[in-house]
Amino acid sequence: MAKTLEFFFDYASPYSYLASAQVEALAARTGAELRWRPFLLGAVFKATGNQSPVTNPAKARYLLKDLADWARLLGLPDFRMPDSFPTNSLQAGRLGLVAAEQGLIVPFSHAAYRAAFAEGKNLADPAVLTEVARAAGLEPEKVLARIENQEIKDALKRNTEEAIARGAFGAPTFFVGEDMFFGNDRLPLVEQRLRAA
Amino acid sequence: MAKTLEFFFDYASPYSYLASAQVEALAARTGAELRWRPFLLGAVFKATGNQSPVTNPAKARYLLKDLADWARLLGLPDFRMPDSFPTNSLQAGRLGLVAAEQGLIVPFSHAAYRAAFAEGKNLADPAVLTEVARAAGLEPEKVLARIENQEIKDALKRNTEEAIARGAFGAPTFFVGEDMFFGNDRLPLVEQRLRAA
Repeated sequence: MAKTLEFFFDYASPYSYLASAQVEALAARTGAELRWRPFLLGAVFKATGNQSPVTNPAKARYLLKDLADWARLLGLPDFRMPDSFPTNSLQAGRLGLVAAEQGLIVPFSHAAYRAAFAEGKNLADPAVLTEVARAAGLEPEKVLARIENQEIKDALKRNTEEAIARGAFGAPTFFVGEDMFFGNDRLPLVEQRLRAA
Repeated sequence: MAKTLEFFFDYASPYSYLASAQVEALAARTGAELRWRPFLLGAVFKATGNQSPVTNPAKARYLLKDLADWARLLGLPDFRMPDSFPTNSLQAGRLGLVAAEQGLIVPFSHAAYRAAFAEGKNLADPAVLTEVARAAGLEPEKVLARIENQEIKDALKRNTEEAIARGAFGAPTFFVGEDMFFGNDRLPLVEQRLRAA
């Protein structure tokens, strides 16, 4: 039976960005099928009463340095926090699902995360989304129209509700079956789980 | 100039326990001098407004599974949460500083953490502290009397106040100079920092 790694992420979440740079290699070396599942972190926080670390001043002071350290460890470009942070990622999440319909959610996600956290761009800006869509090999006019479709809106909502029902309280969240893992920093535990599967 | 790794921990903190099992090897392979610095997590939470993950129901549900996963990854005994959790670690912290006076904080800390998180014992219980002190090569009657000394009480308080002043908001917290790292899961970043030093 094939092992599956479900990766729930939000395009506005910097720790999801860090995870996005690692999940493909992890899935490849453990022989797992990887499923990219955008969801809305804001709705997860609302449903669970959890909060972003930036709501605590001491944690907020640590956040940028921590992200910069991780980016260095992972060999990513210098970390940049968008001026718009926390960013509204509703349109980006929907666009991710449109990209998925065309089999392009992986390049789209990498392009979106690079724009946000390596270039500091605002993913709520239609001009940025246009550029990201184009970089991912999508036709911007077509896909940006498609994000207003009810099917797409519902699919993003369903991903979010499903993750909450399965126990998620933050992003990124991973599932191997019903075994849940929270956070970029839990990828060693995800790997241990996939190797045992 | 010698590199120093300061390890601020609380004997009631399960993630500090996970870190305690890794810091010596990390210091050895990076050539850093390791300083074990007990402090009081409760006072850190109070000062910073941060809260234990167990205060959020969704996070609390995840906590035990997460700790069990880490213990397995690190080759530790099966993780056990003491029935007394969250444990009052005031006496254990003071006893750690008494052990330090005799050059025995390392064996004391391992014995205390093993009692708490591998055997599920309550570190607020004088009988458990007696047993832990003896296991660490200390004379229980002498050291248990010494924890009532004002010097020891003040030293634990000073460690706590210093960590807060330097930016700590949880446990474990590491410092390499004034570069701070929070959490057992940040040890790869601590290692990166020590190798660059």
